[in-house]
Amino acid sequence: MPPFDVPEGDPFGTHNLPYGVFSLPGSVDRRVGVRLGDHVLDAGAAAAALGSPYVSLLARPSLGPLLAAGRTAWSDVRRALTAWLTVPAHQEAIAELFHPLSSVTLHLPFEVADYVDFYASENHARNVGQIFRPDAPDPLTPNWKHLPIGYHGRSGTVVVSGTDVVRPSGQRKAPADAAPVFGPSVRLDIEAEVGFVVGVPSERGRPVALGDFREHVFGLCLLNDWSARDIQAWEYVPLGPFLGKSFATSLSAWITPLDALEEAQVTPPQRTHPLLPYLDDTGPEAEPGGYDLRISVAVNGHVVSEPPFSTMYWTAAQQLAHMTVNGASLRTGDLYGSGTVSGPSERERGSLLELTWNGRDPLELPDGKRAFLENGDVVTLSAWAPGPDGVRVGLGEVTGRVVAG
Amino acid sequence: MPPFDVPEGDPFGTHNLPYGVFSLPGSVDRRVGVRLGDHVLDAGAAAAALGSPYVSLLARPSLGPLLAAGRTAWSDVRRALTAWLTVPAHQEAIAELFHPLSSVTLHLPFEVADYVDFYASENHARNVGQIFRPDAPDPLTPNWKHLPIGYHGRSGTVVVSGTDVVRPSGQRKAPADAAPVFGPSVRLDIEAEVGFVVGVPSERGRPVALGDFREHVFGLCLLNDWSARDIQAWEYVPLGPFLGKSFATSLSAWITPLDALEEAQVTPPQRTHPLLPYLDDTGPEAEPGGYDLRISVAVNGHVVSEPPFSTMYWTAAQQLAHMTVNGASLRTGDLYGSGTVSGPSERERGSLLELTWNGRDPLELPDGKRAFLENGDVVTLSAWAPGPDGVRVGLGEVTGRVVAG
Repeated sequence: MPPFDVPEGDPFGTHNLPYGVFSLPGSVDRRVGVRLGDHVLDAGAAAAALGSPYVSLLARPSLGPLLAAGRTAWSDVRRALTAWLTVPAHQEAIAELFHPLSSVTLHLPFEVADYVDFYASENHARNVGQIFRPDAPDPLTPNWKHLPIGYHGRSGTVVVSGTDVVRPSGQRKAPADAAPVFGPSVRLDIEAEVGFVVGVPSERGRPVALGDFREHVFGLCLLNDWSARDIQAWEYVPLGPFLGKSFATSLSAWITPLDALEEAQVTPPQRTHPLLPYLDDTGPEAEPGGYDLRISVAVNGHVVSEPPFSTMYWTAAQQLAHMTVNGASLRTGDLYGSGTVSGPSERERGSLLELTWNGRDPLELPDGKRAFLENGDVVTLSAWAPGPDGVRVGLGEVTGRVVAG
Repeated sequence: MPPFDVPEGDPFGTHNLPYGVFSLPGSVDRRVGVRLGDHVLDAGAAAAALGSPYVSLLARPSLGPLLAAGRTAWSDVRRALTAWLTVPAHQEAIAELFHPLSSVTLHLPFEVADYVDFYASENHARNVGQIFRPDAPDPLTPNWKHLPIGYHGRSGTVVVSGTDVVRPSGQRKAPADAAPVFGPSVRLDIEAEVGFVVGVPSERGRPVALGDFREHVFGLCLLNDWSARDIQAWEYVPLGPFLGKSFATSLSAWITPLDALEEAQVTPPQRTHPLLPYLDDTGPEAEPGGYDLRISVAVNGHVVSEPPFSTMYWTAAQQLAHMTVNGASLRTGDLYGSGTVSGPSERERGSLLELTWNGRDPLELPDGKRAFLENGDVVTLSAWAPGPDGVRVGLGEVTGRVVAG
């Protein structure tokens, strides 16, 4: 039964078990899948074959029902899957329900409700501040160390990894120009981010406490927040990014459950400013909050950066607490991005804006220089996290090709 | 048959026919309703009783299927409804399918996909600029006359008229304070807006032209974009409003079809700056684009302002063209707000921020002074538009009471 014989150390072994949604060739039926090595298990069919009660959560066209089921169900289903994949009698019953990854089509694994994007990397915020406000006394805005800055994005244009990204057109205006001009963006960029997927909803008027993060958030994925810097620069004062971002946001096809990332938890960077109680994660009983995820950014297969998620100043738990502290409710399928992940060193920056210092220092790629993205360029983010016994937990990848409009 | 005997000049006569979703006492079933006078017709039951093919669009728990059906279906269904309500044989068949408005519960009439809010009133933008940037050479930002500024809001907290609004808590910081403080907002405000409801989706990568507005937008409603000015002021640089807005946005229960507003179309204000072609509505063949909607803002039943929608600089058609010009796709149920509607005179301002000049000149209400909203205050927006033969088209109302958190 080859699917079960995942090589030792495979980042998609039974310690991982990320969820996705796939369809088979010639079929429009979408099915919940669990990745094992380079195969996908038809999880709903497996549950049915084994007479599992989880068929109601898994034999569905979306992860929605599983996401809504809550932490206890998430752990129970994960335990059941582990048994199915490791106990010989169960293995036998489901052996025919695997498909090679290369043979299936992967879909957006859940319907995105609200999409929020944060700005939580201090290195990124400092780089952006230095690039755009070189004369400011502090590259960080006065609020940056007091709250995780965020804004709502367009959930209707969140697309699954592998989807082509059409170069957006829009208005841009250089400071010296008398009037804006219209045309395809000439400063198309990426932002390497981690996305967090909300499962359990909350009531309007009831903030979610810092310590309840794991009760609401099911897991995480990789996210590329494509950005047209020229469109963004002209439009964003005073109400923030809009068309510079809303044309596409790419998501990895696999959602890694938080349960697979126990060993990846780390303490976030030292807090340099006192935090208001609802954000304060410095107490002795606070959970670590950070995650040690090693991201890799490749353009046309050439790695240009390795942003370390462990350096993020604001954690996903703080972001959730902040996002709801005004009484805003959560829905199943809410997605929030960490913001661009940038480490302290040059090769750890999560955007071309920073990597090329706004185009001043183009990257030298095997196929030529790049200040920003050209049509035909393929951007791929991938990542892994430390798992049990030194094994890596693979976070899959999010990839997309830029095509002309 | 009293329901049919709507008094002459009733703003909810057969020239109007707005759509909503209601349920009957003791039932959780939601039904599409059409308002006639102070009754609601169970439109799905009527279609079934008359053997109409539109039962598939109307016997549904949401307006979604009707919204998705497109302009031809919208007009056909409207013609059919008019016949049902005016031809005696049809009247007889549906006479028992009316319910007094006072006996039903009204619900959010469709699932909000993406929610975008614009900033399209020049009077409003100038007032805000003068209040917050008194020393700036121009109260408008440099981009204001070149594009309709907008941003994404939280669709998960859009609520139907009548829903209580919990006063949000959050961070605020006065310029003189050393650090932010946390607590209930002390500057809770309203924004009187008109909301536009997208029916027909568009493809990613394919902008919607100015002239295709009516092919995609089904109708409009009233919208109160509740705003916590103190939270907003501290958080909004550099990525725009977030928690100052995301706690609640109230929508009127009735969606008025554009077909009911033919007589209300007006030419928008003179364009003072040349527009890029995708936004240019000044050509001889351009549709008027504006709507003459007379809005009324009441606090605890006392009218404090009457903002005229005809003064909006940017039209809903321009907003749709702009929102999609970067290739962003539309979904059925997308909702976009016009931005606060403010006319040129003091009694035409659509927010307390402007009406009280940021609290400097409190309103004198029968129950006391108001700089911003107090707990228990009920805010009601209502509106009408000119209809055929001098009859008004009622836009219903959106109301909400502020309650303590």
